[in-house]
Amino acid sequence: MTRYQLVIGYDGSAYAGWQIQPGQPTVQATFQEAIHRVTSETVIAHGSGRTDQGVHARKQVVHIEFTREDNLVPVLVKGLNAVLPPDIRVYHARRVKDDFDARRSALRKEYRYFIWNAAVVPPFLRLYRTQIRDPLDVAAMAKAAALLAGKHDFAAFTSNPHRFVETTVRTLSSLTVRRRGDEIVISAIADGFLYKMVRSLVGFLIRVGKGAVPPEEAGEILVSKERTARVPTAQPQGLFLWQVTYPRH
Amino acid sequence: MTRYQLVIGYDGSAYAGWQIQPGQPTVQATFQEAIHRVTSETVIAHGSGRTDQGVHARKQVVHIEFTREDNLVPVLVKGLNAVLPPDIRVYHARRVKDDFDARRSALRKEYRYFIWNAAVVPPFLRLYRTQIRDPLDVAAMAKAAALLAGKHDFAAFTSNPHRFVETTVRTLSSLTVRRRGDEIVISAIADGFLYKMVRSLVGFLIRVGKGAVPPEEAGEILVSKERTARVPTAQPQGLFLWQVTYPRH
Repeated sequence: MTRYQLVIGYDGSAYAGWQIQPGQPTVQATFQEAIHRVTSETVIAHGSGRTDQGVHARKQVVHIEFTREDNLVPVLVKGLNAVLPPDIRVYHARRVKDDFDARRSALRKEYRYFIWNAAVVPPFLRLYRTQIRDPLDVAAMAKAAALLAGKHDFAAFTSNPHRFVETTVRTLSSLTVRRRGDEIVISAIADGFLYKMVRSLVGFLIRVGKGAVPPEEAGEILVSKERTARVPTAQPQGLFLWQVTYPRH
Repeated sequence: MTRYQLVIGYDGSAYAGWQIQPGQPTVQATFQEAIHRVTSETVIAHGSGRTDQGVHARKQVVHIEFTREDNLVPVLVKGLNAVLPPDIRVYHARRVKDDFDARRSALRKEYRYFIWNAAVVPPFLRLYRTQIRDPLDVAAMAKAAALLAGKHDFAAFTSNPHRFVETTVRTLSSLTVRRRGDEIVISAIADGFLYKMVRSLVGFLIRVGKGAVPPEEAGEILVSKERTARVPTAQPQGLFLWQVTYPRH
């Protein structure tokens, strides 16, 4: 058995998310079919994490195990890119040790969420930005973000706290909000994220930015550990899995 | 009669170009239909120039005449954006004098052409970059570009020299080539452009960048006034109508 790590990127617009779902176009299924075409092997592409419908990946990391022993690097980059649709690309592939696991080995992941905070979204960004027309108070959003960063129980910021996980405690090492002209960029870095956690954090921050809730409410919601209407889920198309970090090997 | 100037942008990927063609989706037809929906008026949207199939417009300028006298600015921005598809957007509308003409009043236009000069095009740029895998010699391209800038007969750089025009002389006030990482950006500024002129200039510059022809051949081709295989037409998807400049009013 030989194991490979691949760094890929995808535009999630046309897919029902990363994970295979019967009868739906998914990135994982498209990817595995492309691997079958170029290697004749039926494999599972293990991602560093799921991305939901319409969510993009600037850099997703995947591991795959093959029964063949020959060097597959050229096939996994040039070969895959020749058969994959242009909305999924392979940037890099390399042989890794058998104990490398795209999800379990990850030290931390960064997601970035892009808000277009103006009346008109440029046509070239329409699939990659969430539009909020009301001017957002970035200082208030940053204040709330600072309260949310740290090691907390994020049960109030996931749409299904018991999905796939034993604990809803996560270490959100960084949550920042900054404005760049008409754009607001929210960066979230954590050791792991709960289901729809980033979109829940962003949904809350947008409410704060609109002045609907004071930033201080962030602490109170964390302590409540209860998902309520105070935490809506932001739209998927502004969200990018930005990068995944692993220990130096 | 009241005349309006509109600044619009569009992703040309889904359109057979700006100009109306029966049985084809065009930006002009889509735009005129949207105006009819919001004003009940049947108008002609006069663009500053045609863009071909698959060519984008960061900023296209359009003038439209209405028989109505009431202020249509809100309808032409908010109203149009509400009914137009998201790949066409209106940024700005204002009332102009009756002698303003989007094409004839233009002092100069700038087109930019974006080449992705690397093995893998990021999925988010796939509709907006032309990929050239061979490393291009930007210094040679810039040298050829400098020879092409100026007032010349560009008959050798248009795919149909006698289409719509009496003369093939144009003043190309600037033609520059610069590299930004994996990207090469070509900017062309002129008082007017011939049919497929930018893509012809770029097609030639790409051949120079690949080392297929020496930059000095630019002068010789200009003088020949004859379109040959030395001047291929570059692909449309890397091309943007970037901006149109008018006299201060």
